[in-house]
Amino acid sequence: MKELVEPEASGQPIDRSIPAKPGRDQSYPPIDRGIPSFRPSQMQAFLDGADADIRSRVKELLSEPEFSYGDSLGQAEYRKQVLAWTQRVAAAGVGQIFLPRYLGGEDNLQKFLAASETLAFHDLSLLIKIGVQFGLFAGSIQRLGTEYHHRKYLIDAASAKLLGCFAMTEIGHGSNVQGIETTARYEPATEEFVINSPTFSAGKTYIGNAACDARLATVFAQLEIGGKSYGVHAFLVPLRDAADEILPGIEIEDNGPKIGLNGVDNGRIWFNRVRIPRSEMLDRFAQVEPDGKYQSSIASTGARFFTMIGTLVSGRIMIGATSNSVAKSALTIAVRYAARRRQFGPEQGQAETLVLDYPATQRRLFPLLANVYALDFAFRRLVRKQAQNETGKQTRQIETSAAALKAFATWNSFQTAQTCREVCGGEGYMTPNRFAALKADVDIFTTFEGDNTVLLQLVAKNLLATFKEEFGRLKPGQQWSFLANQIWNRTRSIGLSRFRLTPPRFLDPETQLTFLRLREKTLLWECAQAFRVLVKRSDSYAAFLRLQPRLLDLARAHTDRAILEAFVSGISSVTEPSLQRPLKLLRDLFAVTHLDAQRGWYLENRYLNPRDSQQFSWFIDKLCHELRPEAVALVDSFGIPDKCLAAPIAL
Amino acid sequence: MKELVEPEASGQPIDRSIPAKPGRDQSYPPIDRGIPSFRPSQMQAFLDGADADIRSRVKELLSEPEFSYGDSLGQAEYRKQVLAWTQRVAAAGVGQIFLPRYLGGEDNLQKFLAASETLAFHDLSLLIKIGVQFGLFAGSIQRLGTEYHHRKYLIDAASAKLLGCFAMTEIGHGSNVQGIETTARYEPATEEFVINSPTFSAGKTYIGNAACDARLATVFAQLEIGGKSYGVHAFLVPLRDAADEILPGIEIEDNGPKIGLNGVDNGRIWFNRVRIPRSEMLDRFAQVEPDGKYQSSIASTGARFFTMIGTLVSGRIMIGATSNSVAKSALTIAVRYAARRRQFGPEQGQAETLVLDYPATQRRLFPLLANVYALDFAFRRLVRKQAQNETGKQTRQIETSAAALKAFATWNSFQTAQTCREVCGGEGYMTPNRFAALKADVDIFTTFEGDNTVLLQLVAKNLLATFKEEFGRLKPGQQWSFLANQIWNRTRSIGLSRFRLTPPRFLDPETQLTFLRLREKTLLWECAQAFRVLVKRSDSYAAFLRLQPRLLDLARAHTDRAILEAFVSGISSVTEPSLQRPLKLLRDLFAVTHLDAQRGWYLENRYLNPRDSQQFSWFIDKLCHELRPEAVALVDSFGIPDKCLAAPIAL
Repeated sequence: MKELVEPEASGQPIDRSIPAKPGRDQSYPPIDRGIPSFRPSQMQAFLDGADADIRSRVKELLSEPEFSYGDSLGQAEYRKQVLAWTQRVAAAGVGQIFLPRYLGGEDNLQKFLAASETLAFHDLSLLIKIGVQFGLFAGSIQRLGTEYHHRKYLIDAASAKLLGCFAMTEIGHGSNVQGIETTARYEPATEEFVINSPTFSAGKTYIGNAACDARLATVFAQLEIGGKSYGVHAFLVPLRDAADEILPGIEIEDNGPKIGLNGVDNGRIWFNRVRIPRSEMLDRFAQVEPDGKYQSSIASTGARFFTMIGTLVSGRIMIGATSNSVAKSALTIAVRYAARRRQFGPEQGQAETLVLDYPATQRRLFPLLANVYALDFAFRRLVRKQAQNETGKQTRQIETSAAALKAFATWNSFQTAQTCREVCGGEGYMTPNRFAALKADVDIFTTFEGDNTVLLQLVAKNLLATFKEEFGRLKPGQQWSFLANQIWNRTRSIGLSRFRLTPPRFLDPETQLTFLRLREKTLLWECAQAFRVLVKRSDSYAAFLRLQPRLLDLARAHTDRAILEAFVSGISSVTEPSLQRPLKLLRDLFAVTHLDAQRGWYLENRYLNPRDSQQFSWFIDKLCHELRPEAVALVDSFGIPDKCLAAPIAL
Repeated sequence: MKELVEPEASGQPIDRSIPAKPGRDQSYPPIDRGIPSFRPSQMQAFLDGADADIRSRVKELLSEPEFSYGDSLGQAEYRKQVLAWTQRVAAAGVGQIFLPRYLGGEDNLQKFLAASETLAFHDLSLLIKIGVQFGLFAGSIQRLGTEYHHRKYLIDAASAKLLGCFAMTEIGHGSNVQGIETTARYEPATEEFVINSPTFSAGKTYIGNAACDARLATVFAQLEIGGKSYGVHAFLVPLRDAADEILPGIEIEDNGPKIGLNGVDNGRIWFNRVRIPRSEMLDRFAQVEPDGKYQSSIASTGARFFTMIGTLVSGRIMIGATSNSVAKSALTIAVRYAARRRQFGPEQGQAETLVLDYPATQRRLFPLLANVYALDFAFRRLVRKQAQNETGKQTRQIETSAAALKAFATWNSFQTAQTCREVCGGEGYMTPNRFAALKADVDIFTTFEGDNTVLLQLVAKNLLATFKEEFGRLKPGQQWSFLANQIWNRTRSIGLSRFRLTPPRFLDPETQLTFLRLREKTLLWECAQAFRVLVKRSDSYAAFLRLQPRLLDLARAHTDRAILEAFVSGISSVTEPSLQRPLKLLRDLFAVTHLDAQRGWYLENRYLNPRDSQQFSWFIDKLCHELRPEAVALVDSFGIPDKCLAAPIAL
């Protein structure tokens, strides 16, 4: 362009002050950060918590030039890239964090999780490859195996010298792992297990690391001894030799292109009577003697199965917590963009309005921001609980929480990524702005490590089981008074007539919790009652089937309550006073958004007055308005490195 | 694998009847189609309607070998593929359908829409390329230009000999088109317009066909004559010569990779004082005389702008209706897969339960199926209304409906694609099963041709404007009785005390409509009242801003009501008795799902009795249960060719 300024014309003046097509650096106006009431560095320090060190180390690593995103690589090159990254992360010692101390490790799951949460700010194929290698493959050896297996494999697994996979899911059986078809038949003569895929549908599928890299697999199979089946057990089966050639009897097929996570080499595996020594059964919970005698400290097949599967609960926590990192990335991009992008305005000639100043934008983004903060507290609490569960007393509760939080967090992350994409409009659709990867990669988080709908049923079943046990422990007289208490005193007493939920009360965390607990307890009681009636008419399977939608409601109510509880208790432990205000705003928004979404239920049960519930929506507007000046600081507090975020619209 | 049958062992018997890894043809069990109460061919004939012929023709075309999906093409090859398909579709005469009769066309927008709906069963890049070429580029010439432009360009545009683009959106102005910066200055001396991009942000962006193929562009720019600005007008500006070389003064930049639609070559365009003859202004609504005298039949700049933009309403209808085709593809895949996939079951040894037989699955899929059917009726009604709008009396109502339906349909399609992906679990994540493309491509439908949130505000503003006009036409005495009627008689009369919404009444379409109308009218009245109060305190912009979340609720309530109305009236015109039952089930599900979602509001306003509203959820279970045997037939009725659907899990 030769000349940029045209002669000024008369009439309505035309602004020619901006030069035509200035450089890219001028393509986005500055971010209007507002005047927050706190310092993001302080909030970040609080969120990073005790594991700030490992988070910083991982961030430094990910900011190195070799970790810059490889744009538009083909599948093969992308997989190579992710493998190289995985080895680089292993070389930096991340794999050592969870190793047992007697192998020179730190045995620190909480720290490993903090590292994973930070890795999840980067390419998610890398996160998942690391999750498969360290969390699932090495993790299964550690938790299902004994010292023999640990010493033999874990050091090489932690350094990614020995790449492995976790072969549980089959073509015919994804969610229902107990129904898998792969068999491990024990032969006393040779002291070997024969691993076999009797059918096409017995093939293992979606197995990360299987298509290219894994040399060893933890394989779940039905143990058979002397023609008798003992249920699902885990075995270590070599897949490839030192030259990466597939071993005889192993058939591997590439799962091919997927919606996302194309840097992970998922594959299908069939076993044709592959023989492994007796020592290669992961025998922490059950052992097979040389003569074929089977022994286990856990009597029932079902209980044994759930104990083995239960040890994998850390995987669910990791998937849930890392998906929350994805939501953080998405919100950081969208909030910053909305704080610099203007569209429409009061009058021509005046400055247009920032997209973030529209109440509609605030209502789309801020409840999601509240969810992300709330989940941060909830996962932290769960991890702490898990670390303290030495006696195993809390196991069911931890399993329940892990399932509940994983489902909530992964759905929330996908929805957050999508809403943020939409808030960023056409810019959000452009690949460099990262939503392409975030959305496509996080999509499957709602399915793997337990399909969310199946997990919510697990939550509900556990709640019902606990309820039944507690009820069963009471004497008949106590049961009667329990019932009376349950139905009338504990719930209806907070009825319309006695209780006004006016705005000041919305802001009382105890009241917020009372309401959420009320919903959970009432639904639990109703489900238990309905189940008792239905099971008499048919059987428990039919009763569960019929009640399924109610059970899902119960599970969701439980999840909301558990998250709010963690949020409330976490905030009370915040020592820096300036952080209290924004966190309380987020907690109020979380609570009131929930009350508003469920106000039909509260009204039906006369726990709410119609005049009060009509206030919720205005009140959400108000909370969003108060959060507006804090919003950019609240996403800055996630501390996502620019090199990881990478979206030009957010930098 | 050498030998597949192992010696039978004693104890719990192990089934070895299925051969190991049979061929791919056996990898999916047969689809359990149930015993529907109607014939899908009859339902399809009804849905295809008057345009069955063009739908069949397009399906035949898309089933030809050259239209098979090109797996994993790079961006350049993919674009070439889509261009070749576009030319093939044009050669088949689809472009002629909307041409004026005096150019040998059919002037039949309804038929063009039917063709587009069918094209949307195939690759969406093809649909969008065709939409850009025929709908936007040729469409703008047809609707904003006069016979001179029609004769000069339309025949070549319809045959895709002349490829063009539609350059409205700018980097700085997407939703707020009135604020665009590109100028078109008229020079009487040369009788030319000078098209110019004064700034970087004045660059046109996301312009389909711009990066590679377009030779001519419809460019929206601020018309300036003698230094005075006359607002936004459209001009035809050549971009490339016959050898596809970019012309002097034109700067084009590729938009690069996107989340989806990568077969469409979107680009950015800047104009450096490009001169075009006076004749190349699209001058149907406003003309510039050789001496620079400006004239228009529409006096105000704003009204003129909205008249010009308003003629583009067909684009919105097309985007909405074709997004519904995407939802049809997704539902066809998911419902069929869920009708063949089993997981978990009553007891070991017994057959597992079909995923479609789980109430949770039914509740995820069937309300979406009801939405898709309801939208089908709603779009058909809107297109008919548009064809009958010769006097222009219905223009505002049509614009309102187009905006409302486009927002509802595109959000619904994205959500449907996502839910269906999740229902299909890991299989849904595999690229050959098509959700990768469906989700990525349909994502941007919520943004382009009007961002959905902006469109809903347009809906609400139009409703308020109509309300104000109607109210203003009343005499003061009438106004008072109108008010009384509005608040008390018309609404509160259907209060808790007089009205029990028991299950038989749920099934009465008039009752269903009464409830949805009640909500729309009440919200409209409340918004109008609140606006009147707020505008006195500040100005109308501030009032709109403050009310934004309420206005969005109003727009959604309007949309739900309008869709149900179209559904109810459409069903009443169905002559084949066997189709009535499944359609009424879908209508009931649509209505009760809405009532359930908004039951908080109905309870607050005492339009519902708590005991009744508690029934909704059980009632939805019941409707879903009744729809189960119809479900596969209901998706088969969409008549999507196997070659288009292509997902192995659904065939």
